[in-house]
Amino acid sequence: MLRNSTKKLVMSKKNSSIVPNLALTQNLTKDVWSLTNEAATAAAHNAQNKGRDLVNLGQGFFSYSPPDFAIQEAQKALSSPLVNQYAPTKGRVSLLNSLIKLYSPLYKTQLQAGNVQVTTGANEGILSCLVGLLNPGDEVIVFEPFFDQYISNIQIPGGKVTYVPLHPPKDMSDRVTLGTEWRVDYDELRSAVTPKTKALILNTPHNPVGKVFTREELLKIGQICVDNNIVIISDEVYENLYFTPEFTRIATLTPELGQITLTVGSAGKSFAATGWRVGWVVSLNPDLLKYVAMAHTRICFSTPSPPQEACANSIETALGNNYFENMRQEYIRKFEIFTKVFDELGLPYTKPEGTYFVLADFSKVRIPEDYPFPDELRSKGKDFRISYWLINELGVVAIPPTEFYIKEHEKVAENLLRFAVCKSDEYLELAVERLRLLKNYM
Amino acid sequence: MLRNSTKKLVMSKKNSSIVPNLALTQNLTKDVWSLTNEAATAAAHNAQNKGRDLVNLGQGFFSYSPPDFAIQEAQKALSSPLVNQYAPTKGRVSLLNSLIKLYSPLYKTQLQAGNVQVTTGANEGILSCLVGLLNPGDEVIVFEPFFDQYISNIQIPGGKVTYVPLHPPKDMSDRVTLGTEWRVDYDELRSAVTPKTKALILNTPHNPVGKVFTREELLKIGQICVDNNIVIISDEVYENLYFTPEFTRIATLTPELGQITLTVGSAGKSFAATGWRVGWVVSLNPDLLKYVAMAHTRICFSTPSPPQEACANSIETALGNNYFENMRQEYIRKFEIFTKVFDELGLPYTKPEGTYFVLADFSKVRIPEDYPFPDELRSKGKDFRISYWLINELGVVAIPPTEFYIKEHEKVAENLLRFAVCKSDEYLELAVERLRLLKNYM
Repeated sequence: MLRNSTKKLVMSKKNSSIVPNLALTQNLTKDVWSLTNEAATAAAHNAQNKGRDLVNLGQGFFSYSPPDFAIQEAQKALSSPLVNQYAPTKGRVSLLNSLIKLYSPLYKTQLQAGNVQVTTGANEGILSCLVGLLNPGDEVIVFEPFFDQYISNIQIPGGKVTYVPLHPPKDMSDRVTLGTEWRVDYDELRSAVTPKTKALILNTPHNPVGKVFTREELLKIGQICVDNNIVIISDEVYENLYFTPEFTRIATLTPELGQITLTVGSAGKSFAATGWRVGWVVSLNPDLLKYVAMAHTRICFSTPSPPQEACANSIETALGNNYFENMRQEYIRKFEIFTKVFDELGLPYTKPEGTYFVLADFSKVRIPEDYPFPDELRSKGKDFRISYWLINELGVVAIPPTEFYIKEHEKVAENLLRFAVCKSDEYLELAVERLRLLKNYM
Repeated sequence: MLRNSTKKLVMSKKNSSIVPNLALTQNLTKDVWSLTNEAATAAAHNAQNKGRDLVNLGQGFFSYSPPDFAIQEAQKALSSPLVNQYAPTKGRVSLLNSLIKLYSPLYKTQLQAGNVQVTTGANEGILSCLVGLLNPGDEVIVFEPFFDQYISNIQIPGGKVTYVPLHPPKDMSDRVTLGTEWRVDYDELRSAVTPKTKALILNTPHNPVGKVFTREELLKIGQICVDNNIVIISDEVYENLYFTPEFTRIATLTPELGQITLTVGSAGKSFAATGWRVGWVVSLNPDLLKYVAMAHTRICFSTPSPPQEACANSIETALGNNYFENMRQEYIRKFEIFTKVFDELGLPYTKPEGTYFVLADFSKVRIPEDYPFPDELRSKGKDFRISYWLINELGVVAIPPTEFYIKEHEKVAENLLRFAVCKSDEYLELAVERLRLLKNYM
């Protein structure tokens, strides 16, 4: 079907297949999102799922719309000609101002434009921090379990990952535990530091554990970073979803910590609009944030403009109508709706202190060893097979969390599944009803 | 204002300033966009500009709105709950389908979903190609003048840039020339190839030269890439703005070229919506495109979802109402409106064969050597001072193109300025009126 060219090209003998970026493509096994989505697509019409829809508590997207005020702001933004053109690389002035208004009280100081940088979602925010900071061979400490995107974001600019475990309570298969019982061993953390350690990624509230790091924990981690000149990249995208009495931001604990911390936030998580791709990085140290800005300008040039305008006005509205507090209360209720089924069944889980995820322990569920699992799951952790079985037998989708571990450590999480509750109450009730069927397998 | 912590942190002696990514931050002189915008802001209220607005033909953003049908589609997209959530990393199915419909006739073959990947603007599309392909130390050939973002996008994954000049006609200061007169020396191109050469970035229609590469040129460049197993990243974001009888896509010339080419497109350029950040990469080789998809997933995870839905429906509308052909005719008229002032003045320029840019040659304009230029312009090319003078004296903003050259080669372009005509007709008439004042300085 291609046109004949006037000059015929001759394929050279030298021509061989293209070698891609090895750091990025070395692990060519399918990622958890593809595997889970493919399993769900295939299972949607099997015999067990005939006559019922799958209940998808896998990926953390919202099953409902952003609030009406946010949608209206987004529609209005599109009517202004210049709002449809490139935003400044730093972010639209309206959004920078709203972020300053939102965070100044929380940081207990008057922030300036130099303290905030808009990014194309929190993911690109974290990548911008890493690209702005890392030189090839620099090391970054990551707590395990980790959000899988961190790893390749460290590798893109040539960084190396150092893993430090969050240790779960030893008896988590026997009782309902708390996120706070997953603990850092500070000696382990200290021995992970080398002269090449450039940054540490912290995630609080923590996905998938649901842990909210305490002030004491943050001070200990922070002291190690201050002592060793390590930049803290604090992923706080679930900052409005904490159910503990307080949420502590590491950047605010001491002036020294303020100077070495880059804090990442997300409009998608805060306004149920994960598809808008608006995030930001805040720092009390404008000189440090400057490198993030430089990287962001090169990675995405600028962030989508109409959603920025919508977020700016939505933050203003949210500050006036108690939106964030109401959201927290709503999620406390959503977790109550959902976790009651585990209480009924006596199935242990990690009671979330934050995020919209809950980890349930399936040790007590009997899954037939001769179940017809696809071959590609054989090399994966046991939780991938539990997840596959649950999709096929009960029609419920959850995420196997060993994806958030390196191979050598995945045993820790092999009986766990992660469920996302960012869904309508009716949908969660449907999930509960479906999961009640687990009693036939216990 | 910061809280006192219970444990006081002690700043370690080891603490020193953070060393950022050196490849990204080594050139800490201000970029052309910042310098020009700052000069414009400062000049807006000087004596000469009192009582008149600046006419900004600098950055390539549109002074008018996207077409009504596109705005309406964008507003409609926001009303659907799931459209506000994460799009698939590959892109929304609706947009993939529209792109297949748009490009299959142009590629003269039925494309499949494996031939298209949606990206967060063309910029992130090019970065995704480079991150997907490059290993540290790999070399990428770039024609000079180059779009400045290419350079850092090559450096982020550790690549090295090799520059090959586009040679302008020797007498371009004496007459109106054509983009096509800027030529590649194929011996120079061949000698730029080394065993480390992984990719070549092509840009047609070319910013800032306005050159549309001919079939013969593309075949010669292509043969060198085929011979040496070099991936062609063809930046065709101005594909709907060519004024030559035909626009040739290198990927379509021979089957071999189809296998090694990644072609980058942009909804922002095609629908006057640079702030939407929707772009794409098309390839006849799905195995090659797979690496782009993997990189994009890690860089941005997914592209903003409501604008994708709007673009999908806008492409369908555009295919039905002759939108792209009308746009071309409109730009032929815009260039006529604008370039008449240079004809009147006898000021040479490169007659554009494509893009919305025109390069004018200011050799004949007498700019006082003792003009009070800011110090930061002393180290820059002469064109930065011409641009500064034009902003301050005539109130017209244009871009100095030596930014698109390495220091050693910038002499070639030191008398040129780049003007963007993606503005309303009235605005262009205003620019013409203002530029007529140049006759007082010739």
